[in-house]
Amino acid sequence: MNLFVIGIGLIGGSMAKDVKRLRPNTKIFGIDANEAHLEEALSLSLIDEKSDYSELHKADMVMVSIPVDVMVQELPKILDAVNEDAVVIDAGSTKALICSVLEGHPKRRNFLACHPISGTEFSGPSAAIEGLYYGKTNIICEVEKTAFKLQERALELFRELGMRIRYMNPKAHDKHIAYVSHLSHISSFMLGKTVIEKEKNERDIFDMAGSGFESTVRLAKSSPAMWTPIFRQNKENVVETLGEYIQNLQAFEKMLIADDYEGIYKEMTSTNKIKEILNGIPLNKKRV
Amino acid sequence: MNLFVIGIGLIGGSMAKDVKRLRPNTKIFGIDANEAHLEEALSLSLIDEKSDYSELHKADMVMVSIPVDVMVQELPKILDAVNEDAVVIDAGSTKALICSVLEGHPKRRNFLACHPISGTEFSGPSAAIEGLYYGKTNIICEVEKTAFKLQERALELFRELGMRIRYMNPKAHDKHIAYVSHLSHISSFMLGKTVIEKEKNERDIFDMAGSGFESTVRLAKSSPAMWTPIFRQNKENVVETLGEYIQNLQAFEKMLIADDYEGIYKEMTSTNKIKEILNGIPLNKKRV
Repeated sequence: MNLFVIGIGLIGGSMAKDVKRLRPNTKIFGIDANEAHLEEALSLSLIDEKSDYSELHKADMVMVSIPVDVMVQELPKILDAVNEDAVVIDAGSTKALICSVLEGHPKRRNFLACHPISGTEFSGPSAAIEGLYYGKTNIICEVEKTAFKLQERALELFRELGMRIRYMNPKAHDKHIAYVSHLSHISSFMLGKTVIEKEKNERDIFDMAGSGFESTVRLAKSSPAMWTPIFRQNKENVVETLGEYIQNLQAFEKMLIADDYEGIYKEMTSTNKIKEILNGIPLNKKRV
Repeated sequence: MNLFVIGIGLIGGSMAKDVKRLRPNTKIFGIDANEAHLEEALSLSLIDEKSDYSELHKADMVMVSIPVDVMVQELPKILDAVNEDAVVIDAGSTKALICSVLEGHPKRRNFLACHPISGTEFSGPSAAIEGLYYGKTNIICEVEKTAFKLQERALELFRELGMRIRYMNPKAHDKHIAYVSHLSHISSFMLGKTVIEKEKNERDIFDMAGSGFESTVRLAKSSPAMWTPIFRQNKENVVETLGEYIQNLQAFEKMLIADDYEGIYKEMTSTNKIKEILNGIPLNKKRV
């Protein structure tokens, strides 16, 4: 099999690593706008060869893992360049705009819209890790628009990678992912900002930070180049969830000012049920 | 040595475990308002004997790890009960009220005000783990008010446990800890609340949650009985930090509504420096 990975960073690079391990005969081609990343991917043996769109006709499978704003520009061109028997999968954190841009594309049936819920706060080829996808959920949208045989090819690989598949429509995906992923990033970035602003002249203070702080600000290390276009594409949903979050924080602040500690206690007790909810997510048992 | 642990949950129980390992000849007495916890601690061999205040005169060292509201009531009584040569240490997440309550106590010199920055989101004797304190920071307040020989006894144990010591005054402790610990808990609890409220009828949605969400809501599993009195005692500082956090979130929301993606990008880029800051915290390299 010839696998082309377009965007050879954490997501694409981890995929390349696993495919190489699972299917040693696969030839992996890398395409990236960043020449330094491409060289790095080659020296790390994530890819066998550097490539470009002129060779895409050789692909059996194309994995596209680039920021979602570039994705909507490039996916139509990528589909133009592949042959009738290739399957193109993406890894975008938004799905509605991507699916709508490709609606009516002559090779729409060659595309499978995916969102593997996996990643770390790091980026670039050196961030690629083996087993990133193991036990994780892959959300697939508009599966019925992909040719049956090509769905099968992609699903067989996802199965080998150890992923759980969930099917969802693109709008529902974007709405719910705003809550369980996009909002977490904003909450984390703004927490980091608040503390850095306050303590900028007192770096020693971070000596006081424990694993709790580290855990809540972990996502504030994420790539702005990746996340800005996600917030842009999912603006409507993100604004809604952010508004609700701010309201909840204000309600908490109000209780605190009013010395309503019974209310605060109740609020925390009822939110404690997140324990059981998270215990129900097998994927989260894998990553530390 | 006779060590009395008052409040034999995650914090006290982990201390008991390590002391037992490091100093096998130590006899460990447990005192807890919760009889079931005491029985559990005994069956888990965290303690050698159940005890009560009437035996406190036998103590060489007393570790008090109970909610901070109970702490301010109990510490004076505990100091009353110990002999002149015992050192009493606490593990409270607030320090100003505790130090002020003990100001002028006839046995103030037997008390060392501590805040070990360590813990997990779990609680109770079964949550006790070995090595919890290894590599962690222990903030000590008003060290000069403790008898020299008793400081030494406590510090020697902290050294054996592998802790880093930082000295600070109680008011500065409470101000800064509001940023690097207390605010994280509120941000996490309210994030959990926002998502649970929205998705309460769609539990499947949590299948979409990845390690990023899990990481940011981890602290929302924390004990309300422990955290309500912390917010109460540190109300003034917590209200200030929470207000700043809400303002930052509102500024982000405003940029998003105004399609100011350049502003959002810059905001995230400047907050990315949390990477270097966290890398500077050796303690956080230990825990996963």
